[in-house]
Amino acid sequence: MWSNTSAASRFNAMTAKIINFLRETQPATPCLVVDLDVVRERYEALTEALPLAKVHYAVKANPAREVIETLRDQGANFDVASPAEVDLCLGLGVDPSRISYGNTIKKTRDISHAYDQGVRVFAFDSEAELEKIAARAPGASVICRILVSNIGADWPLSRKFGCASEMAFDLLIKSRELGLVPLGVAFHVGSQQKNPEAWNSAVEASSELFSALEAEGVTLTTINIGGGLPARYVEDIESIGTYANAVMAAMTEHFGNYLPNMIIEPGRFLVGDAGIIHAEVVLVSKKAYEDDTRWVYLDIGRFNGLAETEGEAIRYPIRSDMSSGSDDLAPKGPVILAGPSCDSVDILYEKAAYELPLALTAGDTVQIHATGAYTTTYSSVGFNGFAPLQSHYI
Amino acid sequence: MWSNTSAASRFNAMTAKIINFLRETQPATPCLVVDLDVVRERYEALTEALPLAKVHYAVKANPAREVIETLRDQGANFDVASPAEVDLCLGLGVDPSRISYGNTIKKTRDISHAYDQGVRVFAFDSEAELEKIAARAPGASVICRILVSNIGADWPLSRKFGCASEMAFDLLIKSRELGLVPLGVAFHVGSQQKNPEAWNSAVEASSELFSALEAEGVTLTTINIGGGLPARYVEDIESIGTYANAVMAAMTEHFGNYLPNMIIEPGRFLVGDAGIIHAEVVLVSKKAYEDDTRWVYLDIGRFNGLAETEGEAIRYPIRSDMSSGSDDLAPKGPVILAGPSCDSVDILYEKAAYELPLALTAGDTVQIHATGAYTTTYSSVGFNGFAPLQSHYI
Repeated sequence: MWSNTSAASRFNAMTAKIINFLRETQPATPCLVVDLDVVRERYEALTEALPLAKVHYAVKANPAREVIETLRDQGANFDVASPAEVDLCLGLGVDPSRISYGNTIKKTRDISHAYDQGVRVFAFDSEAELEKIAARAPGASVICRILVSNIGADWPLSRKFGCASEMAFDLLIKSRELGLVPLGVAFHVGSQQKNPEAWNSAVEASSELFSALEAEGVTLTTINIGGGLPARYVEDIESIGTYANAVMAAMTEHFGNYLPNMIIEPGRFLVGDAGIIHAEVVLVSKKAYEDDTRWVYLDIGRFNGLAETEGEAIRYPIRSDMSSGSDDLAPKGPVILAGPSCDSVDILYEKAAYELPLALTAGDTVQIHATGAYTTTYSSVGFNGFAPLQSHYI
Repeated sequence: MWSNTSAASRFNAMTAKIINFLRETQPATPCLVVDLDVVRERYEALTEALPLAKVHYAVKANPAREVIETLRDQGANFDVASPAEVDLCLGLGVDPSRISYGNTIKKTRDISHAYDQGVRVFAFDSEAELEKIAARAPGASVICRILVSNIGADWPLSRKFGCASEMAFDLLIKSRELGLVPLGVAFHVGSQQKNPEAWNSAVEASSELFSALEAEGVTLTTINIGGGLPARYVEDIESIGTYANAVMAAMTEHFGNYLPNMIIEPGRFLVGDAGIIHAEVVLVSKKAYEDDTRWVYLDIGRFNGLAETEGEAIRYPIRSDMSSGSDDLAPKGPVILAGPSCDSVDILYEKAAYELPLALTAGDTVQIHATGAYTTTYSSVGFNGFAPLQSHYI
């Protein structure tokens, strides 16, 4: 079943290493299998495409020890969201100078903790947060996150993070008065951003802030262009080179020859395509005799790993392995995909037009592709008594 | 701060026992505190209002040992969704005759496991599931779940569970042919169902199935009217007596004097109002100078306990405790409430018009009321590095 390489090649996440691992170990379902070679390749492709940018891996995307170690050895920096993520990176030998604290919502004691551990770069987007940082992290460098458009992103980040440019202007001036180092500006164009032009207006807004502050004697040095680089789900995306070219075109258009230091915070881009979830079909059924669509219930759902199917936002490619033969040759029909819990919001895809083999039956397995990011840590501790998603790093 | 009993009395979940616990132990935030006396009172109120119904507690609502033990001692039965929930109940001394397996989506080995442990009542809603039960649980009793309207429910259960009545008719006949005992019909009118009349059409559809099957020589004995009884969130609800009267009126209207055995599966109703979540304000901020609405970020969000705020479906009452004084006397203004993670879907209430004191600031605490159900087990294992919701049962 796993030997059909022509079929596997259609799905970039199904590497030979993962195919062999599944065949040889037959792991219990559901589980995530991540090929660390892909993480390495992605890191190299990104640093090659954007050599001017320092890469800060968004640890929240997948905080597995093996992923952190892999990226540590590649030379990556790390962006963290909580004291636990600070400790995780430090515990794996990452120097605190390679860690930025990108969450703009921090308890004062969490700022203290990070500062005591040597972290010196903190993000903020409000006066209250800036004052907390000044009080608990004296002399630290701060980056102000601004609000930018997220149009074109599959997982847009709304208004939860960032502030208006006028406010950022005042706060960056104030940061210096508070004894902090105003490092620069951050933004985020939205997760799984597929439009290469999305970075342009955000870079423009940032460059305007740089100029306005320069006129006030505040010289910013750094632009953090956030995350957002897409992974490959059901829709094709542009190559990393296309995104990199668009970003650099925006940088030179708006900053000219005096380019600031650049930081990029990829999460999904580095680990999303590196993993697949191996899951079991629990039930295939119809609700009424006249229904054309089958319900396919898997042993994984929104509450044990696939949280990002909320609103069907992220559409993962899914391939089945049936005892009766290859997915590719099998006649297929429409399905609604759902998880195993008694919660009826635990539906993965109802509107998206998924098709699976007509012969699919309970006990068959499926592989859900490009699931290396934002899956394991979203798992509930045990909703309905189902265990959190297990994972294997190879 | 906790001593204002007139304020506390407006919130039925803030019992004197919880107020004292918070004052005396000052537990780390965020945490859930459940007053087991309220669980007992709710159980007694329910069995008094619906003396003909056997209560099967929906373990998934809150599977804490203390809750199971409390309800075990009250004489409750238990409805489970997974093998882990079977083992949990058995491990706490619940006899398997008091356990029903209500999830219609079960792996064959999970059916075997429950059957081997002595569980003899299984729900199903499809031919494939019925065949799995017949193969793995020979001679067991089965209840067929049918599709009914969920209009009026805050957390409607869509079409994920249940089948059309015509299919249920055929499957219940087939269950006898497969050597199983066709026990009856189950339905669910939707979680947090506030309309007392919602049960009527579902009872009617059930009674029609009873009659049609009786004509085929298949005598059903049991109707499972599911869960759905509401907890008290921001909106007032009818008393349990009103719901019970509506259910019994529907039963006598459609079944006449020959009432079948009744099962009810409350979860939220028994434990929802018994608990409050004690949380800390991490940040209060504005996004722009012209904004009237403040953003209030708590140390709890959709990924560490408040999953049911998805779509702002469940609106919990929230009360603040400020260092500057009582919530009741404080002038208030509109807020957007959000969680602490870097995920921007981690917003609790943006459209719902919540107001909190204008003086609210980072470090103040809030109590989120009626959070005893569907909170702890929805917590992620550690998204963004934030720990799962801790809980205290008193």
